Amino acid sequence: MRMGNAHLSVLEKIVGARAMEQGAEERYCHSYDATGRSYLPDVVVFPSTTSQVSRIFKFACEQKISVIPRGNGSGMTGGSLPLEGGIVLSMGRMNAIHDIDEENFTASVEPGVITGDFHRAVEKKGLFYPPDPASSSFCTLGGNIAECAGGPRAVKYGVTRNYVLGLEAVLPTGEIIHTGVQTAKGVAGYDLTRLIVGSEGTLAVVTRMTLRLIPLPEKIETLSACFSDIHQAASTVSAIIRTGIVPRCVEFLDRSSLELVKDSLGASALAPGTCALLILEVDGKKEMVATETRQLKSLCLSMGAIKVTTARNSGEAATIWKARKALSPLLYQLAPHKINEDIVVPISAIPDMVGFIEQLQRQWGLTIVSFGHAGDGNIHCNIMYDKRDEDQCRRAQKAVDALFEHTLKLGGTITGEHGVGITKKKYLTKEIGPVEIGLMRQIKHLFDPHNILNPGKIF
Amino acid sequence: MRMGNAHLSVLEKIVGARAMEQGAEERYCHSYDATGRSYLPDVVVFPSTTSQVSRIFKFACEQKISVIPRGNGSGMTGGSLPLEGGIVLSMGRMNAIHDIDEENFTASVEPGVITGDFHRAVEKKGLFYPPDPASSSFCTLGGNIAECAGGPRAVKYGVTRNYVLGLEAVLPTGEIIHTGVQTAKGVAGYDLTRLIVGSEGTLAVVTRMTLRLIPLPEKIETLSACFSDIHQAASTVSAIIRTGIVPRCVEFLDRSSLELVKDSLGASALAPGTCALLILEVDGKKEMVATETRQLKSLCLSMGAIKVTTARNSGEAATIWKARKALSPLLYQLAPHKINEDIVVPISAIPDMVGFIEQLQRQWGLTIVSFGHAGDGNIHCNIMYDKRDEDQCRRAQKAVDALFEHTLKLGGTITGEHGVGITKKKYLTKEIGPVEIGLMRQIKHLFDPHNILNPGKIF
Ligand SMILES: Cc1cc2nc3c(=O)[nH]c(=O)nc-3n(C[C@H](O)[C@H](O)[C@H](O)COP(=O)(O)OP(=O)(O)OC[C@H]3O[C@@H](n4cnc5c(N)ncnc54)[C@H](O)[C@@H]3O)c2cc1C
Ligand SMILES: Cc1cc2nc3c(=O)[nH]c(=O)nc-3n(C[C@H](O)[C@H](O)[C@H](O)COP(=O)(O)OP(=O)(O)OC[C@H]3O[C@@H](n4cnc5c(N)ncnc54)[C@H](O)[C@@H]3O)c2cc1C
Repeated sequence: MRMGNAHLSVLEKIVGARAMEQGAEERYCHSYDATGRSYLPDVVVFPSTTSQVSRIFKFACEQKISVIPRGNGSGMTGGSLPLEGGIVLSMGRMNAIHDIDEENFTASVEPGVITGDFHRAVEKKGLFYPPDPASSSFCTLGGNIAECAGGPRAVKYGVTRNYVLGLEAVLPTGEIIHTGVQTAKGVAGYDLTRLIVGSEGTLAVVTRMTLRLIPLPEKIETLSACFSDIHQAASTVSAIIRTGIVPRCVEFLDRSSLELVKDSLGASALAPGTCALLILEVDGKKEMVATETRQLKSLCLSMGAIKVTTARNSGEAATIWKARKALSPLLYQLAPHKINEDIVVPISAIPDMVGFIEQLQRQWGLTIVSFGHAGDGNIHCNIMYDKRDEDQCRRAQKAVDALFEHTLKLGGTITGEHGVGITKKKYLTKEIGPVEIGLMRQIKHLFDPHNILNPGKIF
Repeated sequence: MRMGNAHLSVLEKIVGARAMEQGAEERYCHSYDATGRSYLPDVVVFPSTTSQVSRIFKFACEQKISVIPRGNGSGMTGGSLPLEGGIVLSMGRMNAIHDIDEENFTASVEPGVITGDFHRAVEKKGLFYPPDPASSSFCTLGGNIAECAGGPRAVKYGVTRNYVLGLEAVLPTGEIIHTGVQTAKGVAGYDLTRLIVGSEGTLAVVTRMTLRLIPLPEKIETLSACFSDIHQAASTVSAIIRTGIVPRCVEFLDRSSLELVKDSLGASALAPGTCALLILEVDGKKEMVATETRQLKSLCLSMGAIKVTTARNSGEAATIWKARKALSPLLYQLAPHKINEDIVVPISAIPDMVGFIEQLQRQWGLTIVSFGHAGDGNIHCNIMYDKRDEDQCRRAQKAVDALFEHTLKLGGTITGEHGVGITKKKYLTKEIGPVEIGLMRQIKHLFDPHNILNPGKIF
């Protein structure tokens, strides 16, 4: 339902006038995410306590108004979009880091904390929070939990799920729950924690979390390996994994990606004729890192790399990562629109997938830019097109269909870390069967009987 | 309901006469687990295919007969016990290792595989499956998934949950589902995989699983550190964790534990006056292991250890682990019955907890043997008593109540890896609130509307 003044004044009583925005501009600013799609909310509310969130839901439930949680809108699949208006619950003001416990390697934080800020805070104390989506300088920990965010370091350290010990969350009925534990381990009752992680803001709003930390690695080395042949680069990824060395990052960039970032990588970074780049990073104890760096370097060369460079200092490493992280927004230089998919295939199937994507480009006459977390088989495929051109739309759609079909044929998944949201809804049934989706829908109904929390997402 | 001949002949049609046992002996053999409690099933069935499991459930659903999945009955909380008779579904014949994929670091296996057999199979190929409950020589992978088993190596490598990528499972309605992925990563839909992991065989019967493997560490060193003061040993655990070294095992044994295993440890293993032992194990690249072994040794000595030994070869290390793993059954030398609890506290609270347990022993005049996975705060407390003595029962019960109360006060959990089953049912509400338990019960109802799968467990 649409909201009227009476509704707004109840909300104002709950959060106060300064924590609400109804102006066109603010509503617009909270209307879109990284998909570029936009849906206007009726109002944006900025809660600052769990109890406010609870009261908002009690009211919304009573009035059957939709509530859409939002971190920082960097989501790739439309998870934070208010498809039918309603209240956007912007979590950015709940951004306290309550505690970083150096004795027990845990932290207690609010969901609005920016992931990169959290990294810096724990690293100052010699601790390490591995999940590091490329969006870390602007996404929130709450958004990371909702999407089970991954990122470059997942190949060694795993994804957000592996670092969540316990949650405080508000159910769509307004009830406040506590899940999981504050300790390193625990199995009492069903695993509600991991049910909420990755549920894309459709089961509960996370208001506080206990995260697991690990010791900060002593040393990091960053390598970049240039290949004149994309297939050699792809084969090198599986060769690395087979050695038993576990780099903390194995990122892959294809030729089109390199075109976009070559200036920021610096003139001498790429050897002439480079068609694909691997960014490798190893971390750990000093001596081990030195040995593994040497081994990776010679492995890359033996697989056909035309140049392998080791960053000489953290400044040089930062330049590489800055370029890599800037890639996603730069894509718009190639075409006004993109369809961004984050498929995962078994690592041994990466060479096959890379070949398939090349063929797709030729077949449909489209630029497809691929890069991503190749170390765990997670490739971001960006199909570039112009929405205003009907024929391009049709071809882009055909390419996506073929991409997913081939991914599933290879034993892969349609989404490694970006979630389903609205953009992959129609493909979900290609991967997941009706009985399983039936269970998921019933779980949704059980948590959210009035379907007011982030409706229209996933299925 | 009790089963009659008509029921049995339907089951026989599904699995064949050789896959059913109705004899008193076989029923008895499947009537108990490591709690020592015993409940007779009406019949034991040994399915060998997923489709048989499915048909058994369709029939059981129709007839409202309980079905109780069983791995190898090593559970510590009664999870596999047929409280009201019914069909015990013994999974031991579904024990094929279908595939160990050396390129993608995954394995596809059936649930009846003995954990230790799986370790050996993957290690032969230079791969590693870290979860290693002390029962690994007789427990099954299916039982491990159901309990989310941990074990000594969890401190570095995490628990079973972290190694399950995808599942095939049969719902209590007989429907076969597939959850998760075959790849390193994936987030499509809700996380049914982790909902089933740790659900203690109450939501679905796992019939096949895709497990994640990692490279086998190059080198392992095993240290034992003797302390004359249990408090020094406890403080050393937190000191180790604070250093940032992550040993793969940090096991703790108190004085009563040592009494039981000192003969198998060997005459020279314990220094005179030893009151507590830490078993530490580090693994990884050779040089790193050497450095960390040295560091741990000097740390232990500086914390007051009276003797620190490094196992000279894998035979010596095996002796230590054999002694450690034999501990649990040896407890019955001290008293005819035990109450086994596997509490977890924050690592920094281990010294407090150790002091509290000492006080409990004095207060209630009972022997309490503590040992366990101290590195993640997981202490197995065994309250020894004689069931036939009413007063001992009463005191043992008081001690358990006080133990759990103190654990929760310290921010801990009542179960780190053994689950709730029937033995901790009445304590669950002390840790988990009514809304959360309500959600869990509704999830149970959604998976198992007729309550025929392993009824009476957890809540
Ligand atoms: C340039 C770029 C690079 C990226 N790189 C990566 C990458 O490497 N790896 C990766 O995994 N992702 C990546 N992403 C995707 C995105 O950043 C992540 O999905 C991130 O987790 C979203 O966080 P957010 O705070 O922006 O959430 P939003 O986009 O605001 O919301 C995402 C979802 O989370 C829900 N949500 C937000 N807060 C809460 C809460 N407190 N409780 C419940 N639900 C909540 C929303 O309802 C929505 O469904 C990238 C995005 C961009 C733009
Ligand atoms: C000496 C000893 C040491 C131990 N050490 C440890 C330890 O270090 N760490 C640890 O975590 N545990 C330990 N345990 C406990 C126990 O071994 C584990 O819980 C183990 O996972 C149980 O496996 P099982 O095959 O014996 O299962 P069972 O005892 O037969 O069953 C356990 C539960 O699993 C369910 N189940 C079994 N198979 C399936 C299936 N295919 N699908 C669905 N549900 C199923 C059953 O219904 C039951 O609820 C120890 C036990 C003993 C006796």
